[in-house]
Amino acid sequence: MKKYYEKQLNEIESIVEKINYFSYISGLAYWDMAVNMPKEAGKSRGETLGFLSSELYKLITNDRTYNLLCELEDISDLTLEEAAMIKNLKEESDKTKKIPEDIYKNFSIDAAKSEIAWQDAKSKNDFSIFMPHLEKMVDYKRKFANFYGYEKHPYDALLNEYEMGMTVEKLDKVFALLRDEIVNILSKVKESKVNINENILKGKFSIEKQKELEKYVLDLIGYDYKNKGRIDSSEHPFTTNFGNKDVRITNHYHDDNFYSAMYSAIHEGGHAIYEQQISDDLEKYGLQGGVSMGIHESQSRFYENIIGKSKEFLRLVYPKVQELFEEFKSVSFEDFYKVCNIACPSLIRTEADELTYSLHVIIRYEIEKELIKGDIEVKDLKDIWNNKYEEYLGVRPQNDSEGILQDLHWSDGEFGYFPSYALGNIYGAQFLNAALKDMPNLYNEIEKGNLNGIKVWLKENIHQYGKLYKPAELLKKVTGEELDSKYFVEYLRNKFKDVYEF
Amino acid sequence: MKKYYEKQLNEIESIVEKINYFSYISGLAYWDMAVNMPKEAGKSRGETLGFLSSELYKLITNDRTYNLLCELEDISDLTLEEAAMIKNLKEESDKTKKIPEDIYKNFSIDAAKSEIAWQDAKSKNDFSIFMPHLEKMVDYKRKFANFYGYEKHPYDALLNEYEMGMTVEKLDKVFALLRDEIVNILSKVKESKVNINENILKGKFSIEKQKELEKYVLDLIGYDYKNKGRIDSSEHPFTTNFGNKDVRITNHYHDDNFYSAMYSAIHEGGHAIYEQQISDDLEKYGLQGGVSMGIHESQSRFYENIIGKSKEFLRLVYPKVQELFEEFKSVSFEDFYKVCNIACPSLIRTEADELTYSLHVIIRYEIEKELIKGDIEVKDLKDIWNNKYEEYLGVRPQNDSEGILQDLHWSDGEFGYFPSYALGNIYGAQFLNAALKDMPNLYNEIEKGNLNGIKVWLKENIHQYGKLYKPAELLKKVTGEELDSKYFVEYLRNKFKDVYEF
Repeated sequence: MKKYYEKQLNEIESIVEKINYFSYISGLAYWDMAVNMPKEAGKSRGETLGFLSSELYKLITNDRTYNLLCELEDISDLTLEEAAMIKNLKEESDKTKKIPEDIYKNFSIDAAKSEIAWQDAKSKNDFSIFMPHLEKMVDYKRKFANFYGYEKHPYDALLNEYEMGMTVEKLDKVFALLRDEIVNILSKVKESKVNINENILKGKFSIEKQKELEKYVLDLIGYDYKNKGRIDSSEHPFTTNFGNKDVRITNHYHDDNFYSAMYSAIHEGGHAIYEQQISDDLEKYGLQGGVSMGIHESQSRFYENIIGKSKEFLRLVYPKVQELFEEFKSVSFEDFYKVCNIACPSLIRTEADELTYSLHVIIRYEIEKELIKGDIEVKDLKDIWNNKYEEYLGVRPQNDSEGILQDLHWSDGEFGYFPSYALGNIYGAQFLNAALKDMPNLYNEIEKGNLNGIKVWLKENIHQYGKLYKPAELLKKVTGEELDSKYFVEYLRNKFKDVYEF
Repeated sequence: MKKYYEKQLNEIESIVEKINYFSYISGLAYWDMAVNMPKEAGKSRGETLGFLSSELYKLITNDRTYNLLCELEDISDLTLEEAAMIKNLKEESDKTKKIPEDIYKNFSIDAAKSEIAWQDAKSKNDFSIFMPHLEKMVDYKRKFANFYGYEKHPYDALLNEYEMGMTVEKLDKVFALLRDEIVNILSKVKESKVNINENILKGKFSIEKQKELEKYVLDLIGYDYKNKGRIDSSEHPFTTNFGNKDVRITNHYHDDNFYSAMYSAIHEGGHAIYEQQISDDLEKYGLQGGVSMGIHESQSRFYENIIGKSKEFLRLVYPKVQELFEEFKSVSFEDFYKVCNIACPSLIRTEADELTYSLHVIIRYEIEKELIKGDIEVKDLKDIWNNKYEEYLGVRPQNDSEGILQDLHWSDGEFGYFPSYALGNIYGAQFLNAALKDMPNLYNEIEKGNLNGIKVWLKENIHQYGKLYKPAELLKKVTGEELDSKYFVEYLRNKFKDVYEF
């Protein structure tokens, strides 16, 4: 029997199909820009990407799309997939339509200028160059928050762009516990008599051998880079995909550091496994792709840290490390395990260890929410930043580049993004807790080289669903619980108790 | 003063801008498919390309575009660029609209099936598998010729797709002379006492060193693969570009044959130099890109043969060959020069030497024009093919794969394409004749390593104009003459006289 709304539904599905095509080719054009594009093609590529993004904007916001979505959104007998498709697209369309087109256009232009100013300021180590641009970006995003609308806190409107349904109220709670407990564990680490020798990881490591190690660890975790993906080099490692059968990662190699490329590979491999395991049949509903930034980060960090820095995984990998890099033949496994898990407060987020990483994020979160609300202003940011680093991490930036200028995110107005990184850690530990209930022998299996069990578990519980659920729904479905940082705290305490023997 | 048609003109320019964007991203998606794409992504990529091609179709044929073109085409005070933009787009739109949409769609589907059947037939060495599909393709293209319309010969309508303004009448004339003269030179070659030792080119050549040689020759001819291009590997060498600042070539390397990769590099480098030297300001009129298949082929063959196989260029390159491949230290330059210019009738077009290559093309031309007119039928093709090879080249295919099944072109209905290859040779020699009038010392300069002179000459006379002129107009502008194969015949006679000492 034909349903009375079938025609409208088919039309929306054909719009979703077009959105998919535009997303894939934009993605390809970005990937190519980072990996292959000759230098002088930048201007032309930028224009092409601008065109694609405006076509996408039109598809999502035009009257025909919007009216179809309005007709369909209240129908009660849609399938789960159909309902999620309509809901997601309607939210996207609503949100996009709320920003007046000319303001959005000016924002894009100013954001591009701001990013250039940030690069300039960073290279000259001078926050004052970037300050007027940052003020503009903050101003735009305060306005955006008002356009989007919010119930309690204007920053909620921005959080929602990266983590649907996330609020200051929820984050304040989970981040407060996390911050206090990390500071607590950190003080135990400082008191510990265990002395980890960082120099173990220093040396010269051929890129060729690093690439062999990279493939070795990626084969172990089960990312298919042969038939459904590929590995390339770029300035910063990233994952991109066009559907679930073309999921590409990039890496960055340094000949004095194999550790960085190895863990970047595992991190991106985690993102890539997620995308590769999403069900084929979600694509027609536009539900392919990960749930949110935070859930995506949870998967990359799950592989990078929870699995990748575990004693069992490192025991599995260490013979290969020793085979490739002869200098490790005289290093005990225990020393190698410890140096891979060193905890040491530092200034740069992207280089932070597993314990202190979330503190870097929490500092940014605390600043962003007050900034967007208007409780603090850009001119005071540098002091606030430096003071918080001193308070939480016990280190104080000596210049702007290693302080407030270190991250790209604010330069193009991505306020609300940073929390995803710490959320990834929190989600990850909650998923681990659930996985261990189903597979108490998980770590033993890992040590034996059997990582397929966890890959299948992640597929069945998380990956296959793509964007079918909202982050909080998925978390509830998998763990039966709300967002809670206690599992991550417990995980950190156990890990660093073992490493620092307190 | 604003012109009364300015609004319409601006609108056409913005349509041309969109056409450019769609062409660039389609091009990128094709390039990526040939160079990077993981195996399992084929289906998804095919669908994406289909979508892009249908968007492009709509842009070119929709009523708004068509009406604007009709309004603008008769305006007399357009600039040269504006007039060419309107004329090209109008022709394209007219032509595309002439094929009913359902017939074109069925043709695309059947062509895809036909290509698969051809691959199957080729691998099984059995023309009968391909025959029913080829019959369909011929039938479609006979119909297309009628839809397009023609004055004298139905094949003219198809030639026009690849070489605007070309006709059977013109080709019959230039190909008859060319065929007779090549057969004539070939008989002299056969009588010659010069014995060229083919084995000189055999050996093991590391891919790494082949790539060094490739960069060496590309630097010599002046293709910028560093800032405005790049070199990759693919099954078959090709050139693709997105504007004039991102012009990419690919190559294919065999470790028992450096000659093939060296000349493919120079050939593709010739195409790439053409694209890189087109004026920036033609892009907004959609006049970037080469004039036609034949003119493009003239540039690649100019570099590959007229320059690349000259004694002077080979003298310049030979020390590098000897440095890279030690086995050549005991080979005299004269022997190397001769083996690079060996003439030997063979069965496979793509492996043919400079002298006999055009005969392969002329055989296909003679078959195609009679086939499209209906004077011969697919069932008789195999005998016709084999007899012509015996008559013109003195060799007879022993099976279908080395005979009628060797080329892809007919499988997806590309009748009218083959003549471009021979036209490239004919144009090239006419251009050489003009260049030598301006630069009598051309070959001396080449031997000294100065190839910038010819690059600048090609830019000033040909490349800079992009699609501004039609092939015949450009030829006339550069040489003052019509299409004439006598220059190519004279060039061949001189070349092979020198090599075979007759």
